[in-house]
Amino acid sequence: MITALAGGVGASKLLRGMVEVVRPEDLTVIVNTGDDLELFGLYISPDVDIVTYTLAGLVDEERGWGFKGDTFNCLEMLSRYGHDTWFKLGDKDLATHLHRTLLMKRGYTLSEATAEICRSLGVRSRVIPMSNDRVVSMVHTDTGTMTFEEYLVKHGMKPEVRGVYYEGADKAKPAPGVIEALDEAKLIVICPSNPVVSIGPILAVEGVRRALREAKGRVVAVSPIIAGRPVKGPADRLLKAIGVEVSAYGVAELYRDFLDVMIIDEVDAALKPRIEDLGIEVVAAPTLMKSLEDKVRLAKIVLSLG
Amino acid sequence: MITALAGGVGASKLLRGMVEVVRPEDLTVIVNTGDDLELFGLYISPDVDIVTYTLAGLVDEERGWGFKGDTFNCLEMLSRYGHDTWFKLGDKDLATHLHRTLLMKRGYTLSEATAEICRSLGVRSRVIPMSNDRVVSMVHTDTGTMTFEEYLVKHGMKPEVRGVYYEGADKAKPAPGVIEALDEAKLIVICPSNPVVSIGPILAVEGVRRALREAKGRVVAVSPIIAGRPVKGPADRLLKAIGVEVSAYGVAELYRDFLDVMIIDEVDAALKPRIEDLGIEVVAAPTLMKSLEDKVRLAKIVLSLG
Repeated sequence: MITALAGGVGASKLLRGMVEVVRPEDLTVIVNTGDDLELFGLYISPDVDIVTYTLAGLVDEERGWGFKGDTFNCLEMLSRYGHDTWFKLGDKDLATHLHRTLLMKRGYTLSEATAEICRSLGVRSRVIPMSNDRVVSMVHTDTGTMTFEEYLVKHGMKPEVRGVYYEGADKAKPAPGVIEALDEAKLIVICPSNPVVSIGPILAVEGVRRALREAKGRVVAVSPIIAGRPVKGPADRLLKAIGVEVSAYGVAELYRDFLDVMIIDEVDAALKPRIEDLGIEVVAAPTLMKSLEDKVRLAKIVLSLG
Repeated sequence: MITALAGGVGASKLLRGMVEVVRPEDLTVIVNTGDDLELFGLYISPDVDIVTYTLAGLVDEERGWGFKGDTFNCLEMLSRYGHDTWFKLGDKDLATHLHRTLLMKRGYTLSEATAEICRSLGVRSRVIPMSNDRVVSMVHTDTGTMTFEEYLVKHGMKPEVRGVYYEGADKAKPAPGVIEALDEAKLIVICPSNPVVSIGPILAVEGVRRALREAKGRVVAVSPIIAGRPVKGPADRLLKAIGVEVSAYGVAELYRDFLDVMIIDEVDAALKPRIEDLGIEVVAAPTLMKSLEDKVRLAKIVLSLG
C-alpha cells in the first residue's frame, strides 16, 4: 500500500507515472484542499479535481488541469453577464462542480462527494481530501491579503508575498481515512508539489505531521525545486517569504522531522551532503517530468525506495 | 406601445418578426413561467429564455431554443455522473441559469433577474415574467401527474393527458409592470403559443384576464392551430383534454371574453363565420412561419390591426 500527499499539477505528473507501475487499487492520495473555493454558487476543489482527472486518464495534460477536450462556452457567457472569470472553468469541469455541490447540499461530506466522483469516473485509487473542514491558504502580499488561488490566477503571481497562513487549519480534522492511510502505508510519497501551499496545508491538519513522524512505512519526497527554481508556479517566492532556502535543501528542512529519503534532481547533486546532514537519505535522479516515460521512470525510482 | 403575451417557440417566431417592424423599445413581452423548473440547483425559466435569446438575436433558430452555436459538454458529463439529463441544457445556456440563480440568491426577483439578463444581452424590449410567484403547469395523465415540461420533454408527450392545472396560480400576483403593460398598450398580441400551457398560465395570474377584458388597446390573437393541428407541440392533446375543439375556433372560445381579433390561417377560412359569431373579428392570413420573411409578413399583419 502506497500513500501519496499531493497538490495539483506537479503531483499529478508523478501520480500519472505511478499508476503505470503499481495497481491503482494500492494507491491512496491525500490531496490539498487549501485552494478550494466557492464560485458561482459552486464548490470547487482544484487540486482534488486535477488528481481525480489525472487518475481517470481524463486530464488535459497540456494545461495540467481540467478535462482534455473541454470547452469554455459557459465561462464566456458568464463573462458577458458581467462576472469576473479569472478562474478558468471548463464546461465539463462545471459538471463536476455542479455534481459535487449538489451532493454536498444533500449532506455528503467533501470526501464522500470525492469518492462518488471517483467512482463515476472509474478511478480505482482512493482520493481523499485532506480534511472535510474548510482550510484556506492565504497569502499576505504588498497589495493586501488574498487567497493563494487569487494570488496565483487572478493576480498572476505579481504581488510580492510577505507571508502565508492556513486559515481554519487549527480547527481542521483529517478526513476519514487520512491517518489510517498514513499508518498503514508501506511507502509514503510526498509529491513534487509546492511545499508551502500544497503540502503545507496537509501537514497543518491535526495529526498528519505526527502520523508522518510515526509512520511505519518510509517517507520519500521528490523535490519540486530543481536548480533553485520550481518547475512551475511560485514555490520560490513562497519559500523566500517564509524564510526558507529556495532549493531541495530548503524543502528537506521543512520535511526534516518526518522525511526518510529526499529525491533531488541530478543537477542538484551538490546539495546531497547538506541534506544528508539533516539525517535524510538522498537520491539524485532525473526529476523533470515532460513525457510519460519521464513520469514512469521517476515513479519507478520512488517505488524502489519503499 | 405593444404588449405581447408569449410562451416559447411559437411566440418567439412572431416576436422575431415584430422587432423587424417596430422599435424594440416599443415592445413589452409578458412571458409564461409555468414551465419554470429547478435542475442541478439552478433556476431555469425556459420560455423567458427563449424569448430573451430571440430578442437578443442569439437564439438557435433551428431548434427554437437555446443559444445558437452552443455545446452540451457539461450536460454530457452530468450524465456520466449519473444525472437524468432529459432537460437539454447547453453550456452557454448554463451561464444564464447560473447567473439568474446567483442574482435570485442575492435577493433579485425573477423579473429583476430577467431585466438584468436582458440588459447584458442587449435586449431593448421589455421582457417580464408573468409573475414572480411560482406557478407550475401540471398535467394529469394516464401514467400519473407530472409537470408539463416533464410530460413534453422527459416523456415525449406519450402519456395520455386527462387534465391540466396551474399549481400556485390562485396565489400568484402579476410581476411588476404586467398589468400596466396591458393597460397602456395600443395593441395587445396573444402570440401563437399553446393556449393551455403557455397562454393559459398567464391568464390565470391575478388581474391579467380582467386587464385584458378592460384593455383600451385592441387584443389580437394569432391562432397556434392550423388545419386542426398545432404547428409544434401537444396543443391538440391538451385542448382535447380540457374539452375544447382543436381548431382556431376552439382557441377563440378560450379567449372570447377579451379577444377583439383572431388571425387564423388561410386554410381555416371556413371557420370565420363561427368565430365571428363569438363577437370576434377574423382575419385569414398565411400564419405558418418558416422563414424570416414569413415572420415579418405576419408581424406586419398583426401590427396593422392595432
